[in-house]
Amino acid sequence: MRYNHTELTNFTANLFKAMGCSVSHAQTVAEVLIAAELRGIPSHGLMRVKDYYQMVASGRINVNANVNVLHQTPSTATVDGDNALGPIAAKESMLLAIEKARVAGSGWVATQNSNHFGIAGYYSMMALDEDMVGIALTNANPLVAPTNSIDRLLGTNPIAVAIPADKQPPLVADFATTPIARGKLALKAKQGQSVSLGLVQDKSGEPTANPSAIEQGGAIVTLGGDIEHGGHKGYCMSALVDIFSSVFSGANFGPFVPPQVAYLPLLQKSVGNGLGHFFGAFRIDAFRSAHEFKKSMDVWIETFRGAQAKNCDTKVIIPGDPERENEAVNSINGIAILPQIYADINTVAKELGVSELR
Amino acid sequence: MRYNHTELTNFTANLFKAMGCSVSHAQTVAEVLIAAELRGIPSHGLMRVKDYYQMVASGRINVNANVNVLHQTPSTATVDGDNALGPIAAKESMLLAIEKARVAGSGWVATQNSNHFGIAGYYSMMALDEDMVGIALTNANPLVAPTNSIDRLLGTNPIAVAIPADKQPPLVADFATTPIARGKLALKAKQGQSVSLGLVQDKSGEPTANPSAIEQGGAIVTLGGDIEHGGHKGYCMSALVDIFSSVFSGANFGPFVPPQVAYLPLLQKSVGNGLGHFFGAFRIDAFRSAHEFKKSMDVWIETFRGAQAKNCDTKVIIPGDPERENEAVNSINGIAILPQIYADINTVAKELGVSELR
Repeated sequence: MRYNHTELTNFTANLFKAMGCSVSHAQTVAEVLIAAELRGIPSHGLMRVKDYYQMVASGRINVNANVNVLHQTPSTATVDGDNALGPIAAKESMLLAIEKARVAGSGWVATQNSNHFGIAGYYSMMALDEDMVGIALTNANPLVAPTNSIDRLLGTNPIAVAIPADKQPPLVADFATTPIARGKLALKAKQGQSVSLGLVQDKSGEPTANPSAIEQGGAIVTLGGDIEHGGHKGYCMSALVDIFSSVFSGANFGPFVPPQVAYLPLLQKSVGNGLGHFFGAFRIDAFRSAHEFKKSMDVWIETFRGAQAKNCDTKVIIPGDPERENEAVNSINGIAILPQIYADINTVAKELGVSELR
Repeated sequence: MRYNHTELTNFTANLFKAMGCSVSHAQTVAEVLIAAELRGIPSHGLMRVKDYYQMVASGRINVNANVNVLHQTPSTATVDGDNALGPIAAKESMLLAIEKARVAGSGWVATQNSNHFGIAGYYSMMALDEDMVGIALTNANPLVAPTNSIDRLLGTNPIAVAIPADKQPPLVADFATTPIARGKLALKAKQGQSVSLGLVQDKSGEPTANPSAIEQGGAIVTLGGDIEHGGHKGYCMSALVDIFSSVFSGANFGPFVPPQVAYLPLLQKSVGNGLGHFFGAFRIDAFRSAHEFKKSMDVWIETFRGAQAKNCDTKVIIPGDPERENEAVNSINGIAILPQIYADINTVAKELGVSELR
């Protein structure tokens, strides 16, 4: 069964209103979650409704948050998310980065005291209509061992960068700085399949094909895998995303990022406030005329899209192509929802006294 | 034989003075190259003297360059490197980024019409003494095939980020966005050894253990390798470094980056001016008090350095640890120079009428 995205947005907004969010906050959270569904990233879409709800219900998230600026300069700011739902703190922070870029050429906002914010790409793409480049980073619960370690100290720590073009669609890179997402491992485990070597390690740090390794004390490896394959460079990337999201903002880093699901206990130790994000915006005409910039971006995209593919079954893609193609299809054909997620969101609806999705 | 680094800097500066550089420009180029030697990255040190010299001698590099600002806003600028030696254009650009950060909180400089700039880490580290975070990116000659492609469209495109701490030494990440450097492949080939799978592909795009594959129409793969291991994320990273260095500045991108060695012919097609870089600086007190920021960075570093290692032969390192340890040793014991490089730099000295290194 497929559902119209506007219908899903309204349904989701109603859930968050019933949890106590203002109309505009509920709308923002719904838009961010449904954007993930539209773009074909269901791991960050309606699947999160139950998690967010349980976090709200257990008092771990503040639905009446007053996101506020702690410190600022002409091109930077530090924002206190007031323990809001992540999308609320994140959208307000990105709007501030854009506002600063309008005046100063670039704008940078480090956000503390926030929570899981959905897809990073959503915030980076907010910059596109302003003829700006948008950047969004976040840290996340630790699942990843740094190079040479058996401790889980880093999250999947995504990077999103959206860059406007002229006749070509914008380039939107939105990727976790790890070789595989936790959700994909869980899926393999449910299917009784093994995974390739080079994705996870067991609790002794040895390579394993067991997709359940992280439930047994193991860890996801950094992008690149072992040192011979550049895994220390993936470690650098994940570490930088963590530091920009936490040390800049005053949020918790690495192993101290608070769990984003209510069934995991709160951590004993804290080194900052909540989870952290980092946002950036560049006015493209802060470097060249916007027209020149976008024309040049077109040539870049056309060059790479025109590269010779390895074989006729594959093509060379531009970051953001698959998600944009998903969005084109899903916005017309509707969004398919897995039975388990359908059941979960309707359970939440029932508990909140909201009309169920039919 | 080991040489004192000050002696080497003076010797190298004399070479560049003899090529026609001003005293201060010659000193800058020498410092950047010897910084690479000190930090244990000889592939970006004296080995480049011959390449730079031949580029100058063949008129491909301008030793009387007048690096100038093309466009600016309070927090950004675009710089024309005037076809200077890379370290000249790069150092002036980074100084401008720092100057802008002093006033606006952050500073960002995109540089066109430049050349190979040595180690990216040098420029990022210029920010440290100012209590700033420094960032340096550059594009480079194409050796890397994007995911699914057999065309070489991307360089090793490094990222350097330097972050000040308090009692701990600063974190300095300086890494190519590829699993292996060209120099390491060349070394394996000379030793008659093969390389692990997952580093290079042959001209058909198939994985190969042949370290000479790139001389035979093959390519280095992106960080992560195949799609199953997240190679498309490495592609995103390399692509972003290329775009920030070229589309922002108006330099050539990807396959159009001009060769940085005189024995390769100039390219027929150009899509911009010269090679491109991108620099950034953040005042750390643009986000939090500098003291709080640095204390927090100490805790981050201590947490990661204290993580449990996989076994007693390995330790968990902080980005920049190995290079700083090399620098401590080499600044006391002197810098070892390979015979071939020793011969090359003395040949250059003889041709320029400069006293040879003894």
